[in-house]
Amino acid sequence: MNGQDSTGGAFDGQRDTAQLDIRQGLGHPGAPAAGRDTQVVGAPPPPTAAGPVPRPQSGPLPSRRGAGEEPIPAATGERPPLSEPVRTVERHLDEILAAVPQPDPIELAVLDAQGLLCAEEVVSQRALPAFDQAALDGYAARSEDVVRATVEAPVELAVVGESVAGADAPSSIGPGLALKVSAGAMLPSGADVVVPAVWTDQGPVRVAVQAGPPAGSYVRRTGDDVAPGDPAVQIGTPIGPAQISLLAAVGRERVLVRPRPRIAVVCAGSELVDVGTVPAPGQVVDVNSYALAAAARDAGADAYRSGILPSDKRRMTEVIESQLLRSDLVLIAGTLSGSRFDMVQEVLAELGQMRFRQVTMHPGPAQGFGRLGRDEVPVICVPGEPVAALVSFEVFVRPAIRLMLGKRQLFRRTVQAIAGQSLISPLGYRQYLHGTVMRHPDGGYVVEPVGDGTEALLARMARANCLIVIDEDVTEVAAGGLVTVMPLLLGG
Amino acid sequence: MNGQDSTGGAFDGQRDTAQLDIRQGLGHPGAPAAGRDTQVVGAPPPPTAAGPVPRPQSGPLPSRRGAGEEPIPAATGERPPLSEPVRTVERHLDEILAAVPQPDPIELAVLDAQGLLCAEEVVSQRALPAFDQAALDGYAARSEDVVRATVEAPVELAVVGESVAGADAPSSIGPGLALKVSAGAMLPSGADVVVPAVWTDQGPVRVAVQAGPPAGSYVRRTGDDVAPGDPAVQIGTPIGPAQISLLAAVGRERVLVRPRPRIAVVCAGSELVDVGTVPAPGQVVDVNSYALAAAARDAGADAYRSGILPSDKRRMTEVIESQLLRSDLVLIAGTLSGSRFDMVQEVLAELGQMRFRQVTMHPGPAQGFGRLGRDEVPVICVPGEPVAALVSFEVFVRPAIRLMLGKRQLFRRTVQAIAGQSLISPLGYRQYLHGTVMRHPDGGYVVEPVGDGTEALLARMARANCLIVIDEDVTEVAAGGLVTVMPLLLGG
Repeated sequence: MNGQDSTGGAFDGQRDTAQLDIRQGLGHPGAPAAGRDTQVVGAPPPPTAAGPVPRPQSGPLPSRRGAGEEPIPAATGERPPLSEPVRTVERHLDEILAAVPQPDPIELAVLDAQGLLCAEEVVSQRALPAFDQAALDGYAARSEDVVRATVEAPVELAVVGESVAGADAPSSIGPGLALKVSAGAMLPSGADVVVPAVWTDQGPVRVAVQAGPPAGSYVRRTGDDVAPGDPAVQIGTPIGPAQISLLAAVGRERVLVRPRPRIAVVCAGSELVDVGTVPAPGQVVDVNSYALAAAARDAGADAYRSGILPSDKRRMTEVIESQLLRSDLVLIAGTLSGSRFDMVQEVLAELGQMRFRQVTMHPGPAQGFGRLGRDEVPVICVPGEPVAALVSFEVFVRPAIRLMLGKRQLFRRTVQAIAGQSLISPLGYRQYLHGTVMRHPDGGYVVEPVGDGTEALLARMARANCLIVIDEDVTEVAAGGLVTVMPLLLGG
Repeated sequence: MNGQDSTGGAFDGQRDTAQLDIRQGLGHPGAPAAGRDTQVVGAPPPPTAAGPVPRPQSGPLPSRRGAGEEPIPAATGERPPLSEPVRTVERHLDEILAAVPQPDPIELAVLDAQGLLCAEEVVSQRALPAFDQAALDGYAARSEDVVRATVEAPVELAVVGESVAGADAPSSIGPGLALKVSAGAMLPSGADVVVPAVWTDQGPVRVAVQAGPPAGSYVRRTGDDVAPGDPAVQIGTPIGPAQISLLAAVGRERVLVRPRPRIAVVCAGSELVDVGTVPAPGQVVDVNSYALAAAARDAGADAYRSGILPSDKRRMTEVIESQLLRSDLVLIAGTLSGSRFDMVQEVLAELGQMRFRQVTMHPGPAQGFGRLGRDEVPVICVPGEPVAALVSFEVFVRPAIRLMLGKRQLFRRTVQAIAGQSLISPLGYRQYLHGTVMRHPDGGYVVEPVGDGTEALLARMARANCLIVIDEDVTEVAAGGLVTVMPLLLGG
């Protein structure tokens, strides 16, 4: 019932830590020898059990400083407080990644395709360049005429005319003749070289050539770049300025791409008021619909905030149903208030199978996932506490958005950094601490948790540039030890 | 007249190479001992001069492979072919950076502010949290009542009621009493601790507490996060999801930010046709207005493409004037066809002081900059050849956009990489080659130029992930030597 999930490992790529599940974590050779059944939320360890789990009552308060978070209470009761199974981060993530849809490719104007992945093999119907042309300003000539030219003994050619870029009448030259050309102008037939203007006296009627480049120099030949039938942009290529340049060159105004997933962000909680309202005592401003919509856009989604769910059950159902109709994924913050199974959960349960679970992570163990409505749209529920909500977004939602975008790299890159101070973490939980990571002058990275070791709240989170990830089987990282750090680089 | 510019160095930050100007470059201890006046375009070295400049006629063709570009022709004439002064990359960049305006801050809805820099000191009028509250689900109690509780000897408390998040009536508790609370609920007066639900029997009327945390545990105190009068978000902070979370929490729906600069992209050239048109012989599809608009958006600008300039002089003037009115910067590709002073240059000259110059870079030595119209809007002219246009964008336009955005880091980060093959470069020019950079299995990076050593055209550029930057004073990098590499990471 608890802690029995194994790591699915269905998706490749670098995850935020070694892919340990609880059993692996506790069974790890380096893990403390504490009983493996005693450290999981919902399992019944007596509070007096000797063990390495940091407990509020088992140590002096200062020893908790540096963790950046208050420790998680371990359970003391005789029975699990929740009926949902406990599962690992990996297992919950795998369930989400296996269930998110791959939205159908759509055709967009090339400029709107920027940042998305190409979903078609773009084959050029044209040759690029489309005609033999001058690569720079100069004189088109026959290489055999000019190969022996020097400053002391220039070769004189008769200039038969001038060709500029865009002129459509190809001309021809014979022995002893030259055509003045500008970069991009068609090469006259008979010419096999362009003599750069700066190697001549630039005469308009007769030109004295002071040096002759070898045949083929400063000439761009038809199809040198792309031949008809060549693939120009391939499936899965991210479309940036260079790809847009190439797409335009082969005549494409529109291109088939993996679309941005449409994500609706809603918040639930009887305590919530909209940001424009001054909260009464006990009320709290809805920050999550803003923060999560911003995070979803940053991850590449087309996110819209739907705001606070109405408190009336029928209207709440209508709002959620309408979001399911227009979205590829619905993100709900704040539905899980620990043991309280509230109206939101009731409404969701009526729309399909929605599972709420305790995930062995901190902050934010209360997570939910399901596929609701006629189209079985994935719905991810994250905690309402704003720090836990954004950590949950990083861990579960961002990889899902990247998968929907077709990206190969679902996870942020991580680096190993030296801990600037000791960090403690509850056994059996993967802990995410906001921190600031800096390059060390001697190479490598150093990381410090933000804040003074009490709760990592909003102002502190806003000063962080990374998440410190401490594995399930690690309870303490000494100052100077190595930890995994996930830099939170913003896109755009 | 030529090569006399010094590096302004007015702007800090990492540039793409060591900040060498021509004089420094040629005077560098490691530089070849060639005459310093002989290697600059427009200076009059005879083509037979012995020197290290790679010349088409001075070496066998295969020796040029690996450079990824055809070598630049050095001048042979007795006089400079252009009347404009020759200048360094640094000098041209400094002129642009000194002239770009700082658009006035604008107020945006917080979600639209994402990715921009905050332009005001946001001071919180509120305390966060606004009231003492439970940090998790459990029982609010007096720590002295529960401190000695154990599983064997639980402490029983009478539950006087329940408080959920959003409830506005603070209650109070006395000795021997507890209030059931959910996370975020107001703490009753008299309580100084929240006993996690999992440390109790979760009784609704009487609760058996099996462990008592120290005073203050699992309680969030008023103002712990932000006190009234505290700065919440400071000037110059990039606004991401965490900042949006904090702005919403302090009640801000809108925030003053540095706006995205509005950039108009136009293309000039009698050979150009729009992407929807099949080009006739001699004609070329306009790719630059697409590629440069995409690059400008990627850099953070609000870019719009105005397309190909009309060929009629009066209409051309009208189009440019209307772009000047609506833009913070106008970007024109293709106005400079070497020695040809065409109608575009004429029109620009009538609108203000526009200077065209030969910059000691390759590709793209023909560059222009001026401030035109009544408002002296900066206008940057880049070459029309698409590879040179995008290289020029990287070197001159992207830093200007980032400066207008208020970013401190104007330049892309560079890394040193091992050259996978030998590279040659013309003395006195900073050369930019498209390449692919990879991590070396033993650490560090390895870079290869794209393509087979002839012109770096569109299809090859689209396969590149970096620019290789070879300094002015370097003529050859041996295979295995170190070169500067600028990874072209896309934002978004």
